[in-house]
Amino acid sequence: MHIMSLSSPELDLKKYLEAREALIAQDRSLRRDHQEDIRPIRPESGKQTEAKELWENAGNEISASQSLFPGMGFLTGNNSSVEIFRILKKMPKGGLLHAHLDAMVDAEKLLNWALTLGAGYMHVRVDEPITASNFYLVVPEFKALVPGTTDNISLAPSLMSPSYLPKTWVPLHVARRPFSLKAFLMLKNLRGPELFDAWVTASIRIDPSEAYENMNTVDKIWDRFRAAFRTIFGLFRFEPIFRAVIKQVFWDCLNDGISYAELRINFHPLFMVRADGREDFGHREWVLAIREILDEFREELKPLGRQEEFVGVKLIYTTFRLASPEEIQFYLDDCFELKKEFQDEIAGFDLVGQEDLGEPLIKFVEVFLKFQKRVQEAQLYLPFIFHAGETLSDGGETDLNLIDALLLGTKRIGHGFSIAKHPHLLQMCREKNIMLEVCPISCRLTSSMPMHPLPAVLNSGVPVALNCDDPGIFDSMGNTYDIFQVLIASDVSGLTTIGTIAYDSLQFSELQSEKKVQALEFWKKRWAAFIDAIVDGSI
Amino acid sequence: MHIMSLSSPELDLKKYLEAREALIAQDRSLRRDHQEDIRPIRPESGKQTEAKELWENAGNEISASQSLFPGMGFLTGNNSSVEIFRILKKMPKGGLLHAHLDAMVDAEKLLNWALTLGAGYMHVRVDEPITASNFYLVVPEFKALVPGTTDNISLAPSLMSPSYLPKTWVPLHVARRPFSLKAFLMLKNLRGPELFDAWVTASIRIDPSEAYENMNTVDKIWDRFRAAFRTIFGLFRFEPIFRAVIKQVFWDCLNDGISYAELRINFHPLFMVRADGREDFGHREWVLAIREILDEFREELKPLGRQEEFVGVKLIYTTFRLASPEEIQFYLDDCFELKKEFQDEIAGFDLVGQEDLGEPLIKFVEVFLKFQKRVQEAQLYLPFIFHAGETLSDGGETDLNLIDALLLGTKRIGHGFSIAKHPHLLQMCREKNIMLEVCPISCRLTSSMPMHPLPAVLNSGVPVALNCDDPGIFDSMGNTYDIFQVLIASDVSGLTTIGTIAYDSLQFSELQSEKKVQALEFWKKRWAAFIDAIVDGSI
Repeated sequence: MHIMSLSSPELDLKKYLEAREALIAQDRSLRRDHQEDIRPIRPESGKQTEAKELWENAGNEISASQSLFPGMGFLTGNNSSVEIFRILKKMPKGGLLHAHLDAMVDAEKLLNWALTLGAGYMHVRVDEPITASNFYLVVPEFKALVPGTTDNISLAPSLMSPSYLPKTWVPLHVARRPFSLKAFLMLKNLRGPELFDAWVTASIRIDPSEAYENMNTVDKIWDRFRAAFRTIFGLFRFEPIFRAVIKQVFWDCLNDGISYAELRINFHPLFMVRADGREDFGHREWVLAIREILDEFREELKPLGRQEEFVGVKLIYTTFRLASPEEIQFYLDDCFELKKEFQDEIAGFDLVGQEDLGEPLIKFVEVFLKFQKRVQEAQLYLPFIFHAGETLSDGGETDLNLIDALLLGTKRIGHGFSIAKHPHLLQMCREKNIMLEVCPISCRLTSSMPMHPLPAVLNSGVPVALNCDDPGIFDSMGNTYDIFQVLIASDVSGLTTIGTIAYDSLQFSELQSEKKVQALEFWKKRWAAFIDAIVDGSI
Repeated sequence: MHIMSLSSPELDLKKYLEAREALIAQDRSLRRDHQEDIRPIRPESGKQTEAKELWENAGNEISASQSLFPGMGFLTGNNSSVEIFRILKKMPKGGLLHAHLDAMVDAEKLLNWALTLGAGYMHVRVDEPITASNFYLVVPEFKALVPGTTDNISLAPSLMSPSYLPKTWVPLHVARRPFSLKAFLMLKNLRGPELFDAWVTASIRIDPSEAYENMNTVDKIWDRFRAAFRTIFGLFRFEPIFRAVIKQVFWDCLNDGISYAELRINFHPLFMVRADGREDFGHREWVLAIREILDEFREELKPLGRQEEFVGVKLIYTTFRLASPEEIQFYLDDCFELKKEFQDEIAGFDLVGQEDLGEPLIKFVEVFLKFQKRVQEAQLYLPFIFHAGETLSDGGETDLNLIDALLLGTKRIGHGFSIAKHPHLLQMCREKNIMLEVCPISCRLTSSMPMHPLPAVLNSGVPVALNCDDPGIFDSMGNTYDIFQVLIASDVSGLTTIGTIAYDSLQFSELQSEKKVQALEFWKKRWAAFIDAIVDGSI
């Protein structure tokens, strides 16, 4: 393609405009939504061009309105009353490739299960008696205990009683009843059980005022995340609730148009609490439970005629990155054993926790190399699918995690925020089809989409999947919120872009040969029907 | 260079570490501070390696301290008491390529000149009488008037008098005297002239609390900028003050180690107020004044033996981008006429004002092409040096200004913030040596260096100059503040980087052949002396 010489400008406007079109096209030529093989995703007929235009103008329309603009914070921008959001909700989204199971369920549901499924078992504790002045700072922790346990059980009448001994367990139904504090302006003027419930859900969810005002640095927002997880863990790690969460996640996926999921599960605790209250529900049983619930779920879909809509689930084994090489070795061995038994379920290995505060990947390289050798010798396929580059650092240890993730053969990169700084690494990912799992809303590094490096990554031709990461914490289930944000913040990314992203989320999933082909074929049919429905206005 | 295959990982740690070094090097191989021809800038001897290490670790040392961290806002980070800042102040910085003359002088100096040089001439006005409730919102505007003028002159005793007619002029010495408001908590408990002066300087300077709390969107910070310029304009556009500003800018450059400057001057007003109060001091005379003051300045340097330290000054002709093609045509013609007379002084043409709100370059392409033809036919050399891509937009009109700037043969790009999204445009700039004029502190698009796309641009091998842009508004004269910010926010950018940037600021300036060679040679000598002084601790 001829680009006008810069040093001797042509003086003809027509030629100028031709050269301009060519340069814009060349600048976008690496984008996957501009590739030839994307044709099946691109609306083709004249009628479909209409849909394409409708959608590609959506960003402008929305930003012109008073209530939404592309530079707004992610959380305040979750305006699900917008027409385009309603349509996006019905988009076939392909695979969900980056989400942490323990942060995927709505806080209210989790608490409700604690009250029903956990009745008689669930207890709550805090670090100090709750007072008017520490009310918003104290973090509730939960645990299911064998009924009748007396060890470390509180005898105080309430978490607010001055006689409450720090960190002793109060039965949940006891703690809820007298939950109120005189002389203090309560959350939404609630008292008793309603106040307790509002307090617990507020501890799990991060609201916009927290994210943009109080928690306006990277470390502060991470501290807030860790507090949310302290509340979630004890609720989640009780077999009946764990099972309920899994089923709910499947339904949430289905209802959001997600047809496949690779869920990151934190295998750090060796045991959850079993249904009978004993703390001996182990890793093998977790995977078995997931397999069982998936079978149940499929049975439930059959009478609805929706069984084709959900291809399945795989698990990415994770543990915390703040660990010694010996500890990582232990979890690698555990992952290896699970893989031998659950070859279809276990898709990969990863480390979680704030990258900037955890250990860099380089610290574990020896155990990783040994692990790869062992996997190879056993003729298993068990790749790394690492978080890497979730940092603002330029050339520091966390930024260099990208280097190690790539050298260790990571199949995809979780977040990869800092990769936009690295032209060679972007090229590597493009050429070797290493996908970036981008999670706009959960991004702790930037507060709005226009500051996010996603456009640079898309323009570099690196495959991208959009993901919700921790939707329970942001009250944003499914991938619709994230896709919505990407769409309204760009004049380049439109219908073809989000279609490409959805297609790629299956293409670069760990689904294997035949199943992947089937999933892609079925997605294409749903995509075509989605486009038709937009065009004929039936959506 | 052999990079380990990703699919079949080597199992040997030593080989892994070699491959890691190679990949990091390859990822940085495009950087200009990693190029072979940078060798004269790089500290070479063993002794100098020490200096290099000292500096390249500076970022870590500083971020480890409690008071400064790389993610802090630019303005709160201006901690000039830090040792490394003091040393950087003495660094030979090469050329200052992006700064607007009317925003280059300290607010207090400007006001002081209004009181001395403007005595009897300078007047002030506001849009409405100042009250306790509008005190922080009302913007003072100034103008020098012929003594004895009665037209539009206020008869009220004060700007705070209820009898003050909006927009009528009050003599400066009259306005200052009774400047206080009862029943209102005053700025720093000042009253009278001190309060007036504090009010005016606060209107010009943007302080951190404004920038990060009240003005926390791109449009708001731009509104604040425009208000500052409303106050500056009438002070600046009075011949005696204009002359004083120029001389001061030369001294500020010299004292900051800047040896050459290309100053953007806004030629939008056809006339300034002449020393005698008449408003007929025209564009030709501005350039003549600058030429005269440069000669004076050189004479003043001779007895100090510092005449070699300042190579000279060129002007970039600018006007506002919020204009019709006919208006732009007028200013292009005016620029052309000035260039014919002042071939050495006039270096290029540019448009100023918030890009997102102004007209895009494409709107003026016809007049630009005609202009280029005319310049060529007259055998003149008068390139565009455009602001472009100072936006968060992805593929919108302002983002596409980069396309037009490049097609119109811009010699450099002012800001170019959004270019980090465009792999092909980065490649074009690298291959054609089109420099980016980066202005970290004045950046209205991000509040801190770790969010700035500079590292991506450096890693792409595009030449970069660091600039202060509007130092009067940020109270950050010279380039030291910007260089300091870049240094502490990166683990990659060190002494060699900032040396390369300084070298390139002369290399890609509009200095012509022989003068450029001399400037570069002299800079290299100063750089070597600077390194020596760091090493022997004499700095």
